[in-house]
Amino acid sequence: MIGNGLKIEAIFMLFPLFVSFFYGSGDHWAFICSSVILAVIGTLLGALKPKYSSFRMRDAYAVAGLAWLLFSFSGTLPYWLSGCFSSFIDCVFESVSGFTTTGASVLTNVEILPKGILFWRSLSQWVGGMGVLLFMMAVMPSLNSSSINILRAETTGPAPDRVVPRIRETARIMYLIYLGMTFVLAVILCFAGLPVFDSIVNAFATAGTGGASTMNASIAAYNNITVEVVITIFMFLFGISFTLYFLLLDRKFSRFVKDSELRLYFGMVVLAIVIVTLNVSGVYGGIFEALRYASFQVSSIVSTTGFSTTDFSLWPTLSQIVLVVLMVVGGCAASTSGGMKQIRVIILIKAAKNEVNKIFHPESVKAVSVNGRNITSDAVSKISLFFFIYFAFFIVAVALISIEGKDILSSVTAVISAISNIGPGLGTVGPASDYAAFSPFSKGVLSFCMIAGRLEFFPILILLTPSAWLNGR
Amino acid sequence: MIGNGLKIEAIFMLFPLFVSFFYGSGDHWAFICSSVILAVIGTLLGALKPKYSSFRMRDAYAVAGLAWLLFSFSGTLPYWLSGCFSSFIDCVFESVSGFTTTGASVLTNVEILPKGILFWRSLSQWVGGMGVLLFMMAVMPSLNSSSINILRAETTGPAPDRVVPRIRETARIMYLIYLGMTFVLAVILCFAGLPVFDSIVNAFATAGTGGASTMNASIAAYNNITVEVVITIFMFLFGISFTLYFLLLDRKFSRFVKDSELRLYFGMVVLAIVIVTLNVSGVYGGIFEALRYASFQVSSIVSTTGFSTTDFSLWPTLSQIVLVVLMVVGGCAASTSGGMKQIRVIILIKAAKNEVNKIFHPESVKAVSVNGRNITSDAVSKISLFFFIYFAFFIVAVALISIEGKDILSSVTAVISAISNIGPGLGTVGPASDYAAFSPFSKGVLSFCMIAGRLEFFPILILLTPSAWLNGR
Repeated sequence: MIGNGLKIEAIFMLFPLFVSFFYGSGDHWAFICSSVILAVIGTLLGALKPKYSSFRMRDAYAVAGLAWLLFSFSGTLPYWLSGCFSSFIDCVFESVSGFTTTGASVLTNVEILPKGILFWRSLSQWVGGMGVLLFMMAVMPSLNSSSINILRAETTGPAPDRVVPRIRETARIMYLIYLGMTFVLAVILCFAGLPVFDSIVNAFATAGTGGASTMNASIAAYNNITVEVVITIFMFLFGISFTLYFLLLDRKFSRFVKDSELRLYFGMVVLAIVIVTLNVSGVYGGIFEALRYASFQVSSIVSTTGFSTTDFSLWPTLSQIVLVVLMVVGGCAASTSGGMKQIRVIILIKAAKNEVNKIFHPESVKAVSVNGRNITSDAVSKISLFFFIYFAFFIVAVALISIEGKDILSSVTAVISAISNIGPGLGTVGPASDYAAFSPFSKGVLSFCMIAGRLEFFPILILLTPSAWLNGR
Repeated sequence: MIGNGLKIEAIFMLFPLFVSFFYGSGDHWAFICSSVILAVIGTLLGALKPKYSSFRMRDAYAVAGLAWLLFSFSGTLPYWLSGCFSSFIDCVFESVSGFTTTGASVLTNVEILPKGILFWRSLSQWVGGMGVLLFMMAVMPSLNSSSINILRAETTGPAPDRVVPRIRETARIMYLIYLGMTFVLAVILCFAGLPVFDSIVNAFATAGTGGASTMNASIAAYNNITVEVVITIFMFLFGISFTLYFLLLDRKFSRFVKDSELRLYFGMVVLAIVIVTLNVSGVYGGIFEALRYASFQVSSIVSTTGFSTTDFSLWPTLSQIVLVVLMVVGGCAASTSGGMKQIRVIILIKAAKNEVNKIFHPESVKAVSVNGRNITSDAVSKISLFFFIYFAFFIVAVALISIEGKDILSSVTAVISAISNIGPGLGTVGPASDYAAFSPFSKGVLSFCMIAGRLEFFPILILLTPSAWLNGR
């Protein structure tokens, strides 16, 4: 399975290769070599016949964990071979940051990068956003029904499930919706006045909620209010669960608008925009100017994209706190966004309310229900523990990062930004800055956080469990 | 019940009155008036006959919540009448900070305070540490068996329980151990060279893990290494569960040393001291000097006392992160310390491990067990949700505090410090500073956080639930 994944990655590298030839940017050898190497390794791995063909949940988690580690490391090849990076760990950071749709960069100047590399950065975000394994499921013919577990392990949120009975169809539908929305966005950006290359690259980065731009100043560089509004709206849209878009295609409009997660997401975004607009109106001399910057930044952070049109690390404290809360929460389950996901917040709030109600009526305990469906107490406890695991990872990572002695705010928000796959943080890792100044050790820790956050910890915890490596069936 | 509590508070005010007369500090009228007012209100409230005499858990939570609000507000009387404070909200902050054993102060200069007020500050920490209602149970004759629920509601930790069959005996034993340890500490401090008054006040502040000192520079003012070592050890001791000391009295030594919570607490303290010592050794030019400051500060923070012998807000980032983690975790259940408590961390870690194991063996789910006793899945889920509620409170409070625009680090650590009942934070609320600069609104929010944190949220959540105020039995 992983071998096939590498072959698909090799095929994906042909796109930047084509871009490189088309623009004559001179980085074609990096992609030719990388693609050949991955194709060879992929074919060799593919020749190994697995002993069992069904995936239990533990196998699925292990496959997801291993595959993501391998894909991210293989993605470093073009960076390394292109000679644009000064060290190997920088390449790893950039590649992991791409596939996990974080979009954090160790580069202080991205505008000098050859076009092939720029394209690869944003393409990796696009593929990573929806999931590399999900793409495989969409194109590969020979998957049995147990591969639903792989979909569960890779897709974000507590209980991702198929939208149609067949898994392959599910994967295809999700990728088609994704491709369609990306295409529409790229066309609109083109019409709004961006060059074709920039339109495509920014569309990929928006769709994957990655946020790697072609410009050092991110979207602010275009100084184009239409582009800003369009990207604001699309960042928000890519933070919505793709299973909901399937409902739309299926003409189930009332279920779409009544969805609890969508409502919380929408409400949280509106509330955040209102608070931030009022809070920063003094900074921008006018409520409309403030609204423009507030809505872009809020949409960018809650969807964990990480684009910016202003340096929000200079905003007043309240606005920064609002952004940090949105960083931790993130978008909806089964979207391309990161963070803990809105649905988990809903379930935790409802479960906490239940806990208080239990004190009043210890006998009659009602189950937590979302969208009219009861959540099992097992699922609730898994989500509460997910919350704890998020913070356990967070604390350990912050402690490791802080060894090198950057200030607390930068260390803390760098880790939140990595786990939630955002990109910028506050302080010295604000939107006007980059991760170049971190030590190789810290870059390694942050890369690990990005993968752990993207896969929502369990696949990585499985790989860290010794008994996972022992034979046992 | 609350009326009786107020009468007891009136009696407690006689101690600072005596101190005031003894030293001729001139603040005796503040205590005479306060004491009379509380005695009158207490007698009036006591005349109301309750309709029911048994306490269900919800009643107990409501009593604990209301009682603590009332005790804290009544405790403001001497401060207000003494004229030492510039506004009423300052008095509220100081009183709440005292009873909840936070020890945060709005005063920039405590050395000019009259001795009666100084004594009241630390006495309120001593009473609040073990619990005002628990004291009542120890001295009042007419309590039925359902009052165990009040002990549960007021004592910290997930499942506090009686140590002997009768509740009144339990309360008495706990208070006697507490009184004995405080007495020993005061005597040792006296022998170590502190004046009698300072010995008693600092012993109260240490025992309650409050941390209100008689000196602006806290314990550093004495520049006495014996005092520092003694207080370091006693702060650690008062962070240990008092039910464990009962085991010691009962000569159950092996159960004492095998206690999981004690082991985690001890291990965490040792690990923190080692990390901080190595990290700050450059600051203090020598490993022994570093060890001296590291161990005092670690012991002070983990027990949530808040004394200081150095300004740790100037320490390197790693050390500050370690202290913030200790702030959130706090000491052991059923001790006078604040924070989430070590036992909850144990249970959360074990439950998270279980969650990973479930992926391997979905059929055979083992219960989480601590000290050989199984924890029900209900209790585990309550603890996981406690963790979420802690952060929900934290986030809302930080957002409210940040409206006035203090820097993020100060706002965030002020709230952690308030919820965990510590005192100092980092940044502008570091140990060398105070809370005078906060707006009245922020002081109110922080006072609320202190009470919510001291009572571990549920009593306050009950009071905020409308149905709690409706008749229903």
